[in-house]
Amino acid sequence: MGLGLGALLKSGGLSVSDYDAIVSINIFIALLCSCIVIGHLLEGNRWVNESITALVMGLITGGVILLVTNGTNSRILVFSEDLFFIYLLPPIIFNAGFQVKKKQFFRNFITIILFGAVGTLISFVIISLGAMGLFKKLDVGPLELGDYLAIGAIFSATDSVCTLQVLNQDETPQLYSLVFGEGVVNDATSVVLFNAIENLDIANFDAIVLLNFVGKFLYLFFTSTILGVATGLLSAYIIKKLCFARHSTDREVSIMILMAYLSYMLSMLLDLSGILTVFFCGIVMSHYTWHNVTESSRVTTKHTFATLSFIAEIFLFLYVGMDALDIEKWKLASSSPKKPIALSAIILGLVMVIIWWAGLMRGAVSIALAYNKFTSSGHTEVRVNAIMITSTVIVVLFSTMVFGLLTKPLLSLLIPPRTGLNTSSLLSSQSILDPLLTSMMGSDFDVGQINSPQYNLQFILTAPTRSVHRLWRKFDDRFMRPMFGGRGFVPFVPGSPVERSVPEPYLGTVTEAEHS
Amino acid sequence: MGLGLGALLKSGGLSVSDYDAIVSINIFIALLCSCIVIGHLLEGNRWVNESITALVMGLITGGVILLVTNGTNSRILVFSEDLFFIYLLPPIIFNAGFQVKKKQFFRNFITIILFGAVGTLISFVIISLGAMGLFKKLDVGPLELGDYLAIGAIFSATDSVCTLQVLNQDETPQLYSLVFGEGVVNDATSVVLFNAIENLDIANFDAIVLLNFVGKFLYLFFTSTILGVATGLLSAYIIKKLCFARHSTDREVSIMILMAYLSYMLSMLLDLSGILTVFFCGIVMSHYTWHNVTESSRVTTKHTFATLSFIAEIFLFLYVGMDALDIEKWKLASSSPKKPIALSAIILGLVMVIIWWAGLMRGAVSIALAYNKFTSSGHTEVRVNAIMITSTVIVVLFSTMVFGLLTKPLLSLLIPPRTGLNTSSLLSSQSILDPLLTSMMGSDFDVGQINSPQYNLQFILTAPTRSVHRLWRKFDDRFMRPMFGGRGFVPFVPGSPVERSVPEPYLGTVTEAEHS
Repeated sequence: MGLGLGALLKSGGLSVSDYDAIVSINIFIALLCSCIVIGHLLEGNRWVNESITALVMGLITGGVILLVTNGTNSRILVFSEDLFFIYLLPPIIFNAGFQVKKKQFFRNFITIILFGAVGTLISFVIISLGAMGLFKKLDVGPLELGDYLAIGAIFSATDSVCTLQVLNQDETPQLYSLVFGEGVVNDATSVVLFNAIENLDIANFDAIVLLNFVGKFLYLFFTSTILGVATGLLSAYIIKKLCFARHSTDREVSIMILMAYLSYMLSMLLDLSGILTVFFCGIVMSHYTWHNVTESSRVTTKHTFATLSFIAEIFLFLYVGMDALDIEKWKLASSSPKKPIALSAIILGLVMVIIWWAGLMRGAVSIALAYNKFTSSGHTEVRVNAIMITSTVIVVLFSTMVFGLLTKPLLSLLIPPRTGLNTSSLLSSQSILDPLLTSMMGSDFDVGQINSPQYNLQFILTAPTRSVHRLWRKFDDRFMRPMFGGRGFVPFVPGSPVERSVPEPYLGTVTEAEHS
Repeated sequence: MGLGLGALLKSGGLSVSDYDAIVSINIFIALLCSCIVIGHLLEGNRWVNESITALVMGLITGGVILLVTNGTNSRILVFSEDLFFIYLLPPIIFNAGFQVKKKQFFRNFITIILFGAVGTLISFVIISLGAMGLFKKLDVGPLELGDYLAIGAIFSATDSVCTLQVLNQDETPQLYSLVFGEGVVNDATSVVLFNAIENLDIANFDAIVLLNFVGKFLYLFFTSTILGVATGLLSAYIIKKLCFARHSTDREVSIMILMAYLSYMLSMLLDLSGILTVFFCGIVMSHYTWHNVTESSRVTTKHTFATLSFIAEIFLFLYVGMDALDIEKWKLASSSPKKPIALSAIILGLVMVIIWWAGLMRGAVSIALAYNKFTSSGHTEVRVNAIMITSTVIVVLFSTMVFGLLTKPLLSLLIPPRTGLNTSSLLSSQSILDPLLTSMMGSDFDVGQINSPQYNLQFILTAPTRSVHRLWRKFDDRFMRPMFGGRGFVPFVPGSPVERSVPEPYLGTVTEAEHS
């Protein structure tokens, strides 16, 4: 709970004694609660999901505040990247890594990297060039090459969070893990891209600069990953060696939470991509650390991380919805009301172009990056910046609402709910998306089926990964697990009365069903 | 994890882009981790406990920073009451209410109120009068009646947290629940007192003002309690009616966390005592809500709340230790170096006087109140204020370190570890504390034994409570539980694969052993 609220107070620079701060905190918590309740009540509904509920409620609240404050203000708090990058994003991404079905993820590693990194780069190029070409026509104001590149990076960031809410990990594990991994890699890529662009020397842009750019990009990518893995392994080692279980579950959970967060902050300290770091830290923790702790610690961490990320997401969408009605910027942009609409239309068009490669919706990451680029701590006086922000908000709202609403029916159309784990039935369903979906589903079949010519590409993609995966498993069993623990490599250590009363089958269930 | 950090950034008014902020966050998380590890390693040691570890490490860190910054600064962050009252205190107090053994607590309700509220009032009067009398002798500067009363309230707040770390809830449940409840009631009382004093019209102090004062005190006490109970019941009702379990554990946990925090913030919004509110909210939640959720939600909430409070405590002591070396204030006070020492000595003396009534150590609450009273957001330019702050820090450090170190051996002297639940063996142990301890232990015996004359007081105290307790149980079983759920009144709702695989004995264990 502390997550959003810290920033809530901070961003406004308010203190407890400040009555408004307490009011806004109360409003926000109340809104969060009602979002959860409503989202639960609408669960059955095939169109709506939690994010959209939060967005709509945010819009409504914003409207109400507008009326109450007589149109002077629509926001309880000022948007700050701190709020986003320090409080909301880490739990979401860490949980993503912690809960991802690792086997699926690594089996399709190459596919995911292709969809994620390369796809993002493609969309980045397309959007940048498109924006460069089209924005010129309606003079929005002075935008340099750097700005266009930034726009490209901003709108390359997809919102997989929202998409995943309508996917069912058990019905379509393959598709889920792909969209999932793709989403995270995509977020990471666009953020890394964005940072790389920020430090880019646009003035004299030539081959060397480009090489530097590519080099920096790769450097960020790998160092971030390594840092995350290292922190994860360290936590696993500490907990395995010290056997916290002997004394208290709380110590284990604390250490896991703190070290997960430490990895993220360390990464920011070193100017790396915190997203990648904390994502891989999550993967390593669920692969090693999670198996070294007591039973109750496993249940606790599993659900605590999920809950934190759950709250963070709702908070995020709630806020984006509320921010959409930000008067300040609309006023600035309203001097030419058509401009933001036109811009949004263009960007949406460009997004549509690369939609099949880089995912469906534009979401919170885009907003955060846009604010980071075009405002100073949530405020802007420059007209062009205001226009850019408003356009971003429009794009995010539109894509999330419309595509978000369409996703569920579309999926239930493509993937008959009854298919369960048998994804091959997908082939029977005819749709324009078939090529994509089959290629995504492909690696669910065993090699025998893949021999049919139409799966060559798929085979080429997955075959090496699989052999790599096999080698890794050997290495893991022989060297890693004995050192850092992991499933089957740690004696069952009862910590509290709870554990002692837990029979093995229970342990089994959590391990297999929850953490395959 | 977000808890302290929000304020960490906020209090300094720093932004992510600010390198120092990220550095300090990293240092703090690293320190927290090492405190946990060291505290674990020293677990066996009969003298040390986690708080003292944190205090010492805080002192060391402060010293290191002093050296690094060449004596200009010893603190990574400025102490703010926000950090304390919005982030650190709520989880600690809520967890206190959530984990307290309710049966013990309510059985000894009157005793606890006596020890807590009345004891605090006594110590408040003694310390205020004592300070008034003794401070005059060494002219520390202009202090009015209000200041003396404030000092009384500040040092009436005991630090039960630290004491409880050395008590064993299973070996001495009676003593534990008494110290526990007493501590919370005491904290609440002193905070309420403090607030009441702040709004007190000292100028023309007469009977009416005093009546107002008492009235306000009682009003705060009861409204706060009612608010907490109401919020708790609401959460129980919502979860029971909506059966979140059908869909997700995360929703249940989120709702519990959010509503617990909401109760605290609402209480602050209404200028009530958040401590009392959130404490009773915790009690109600563990009595009703906790039984309405799925098995994994129970394990998760139980350990999540414990972990949050655990981290908050360590953070707190770590910080107090670091703050002790705050140069700014020492410089100000150092113009008369003997003063703070003398003051501390006086206060310590006064504390000793009422120590047996109001608990052992002075801790974080005192610090927070002192800062609230004598500084503006952690800074002060007035000499007398600086002296007061430094004295407070000295008292807290000394009492925590010395008494803290003495508590464990003292207890193992009074209560032979082997006694287990048979506390009657206490009578055999001879010590100056016997009268107190026996009266505290008394109600562990059944009525038959209590008839012996020496337990009359005890009997008078507990007898009514018990009948009230019996009546309450009847009412609870007949009206409350059917409405709000609770043990045995909710059908077992499996939520996730985890629960389905959990046999009844497991459920039983948590309920009985963990939540009696």
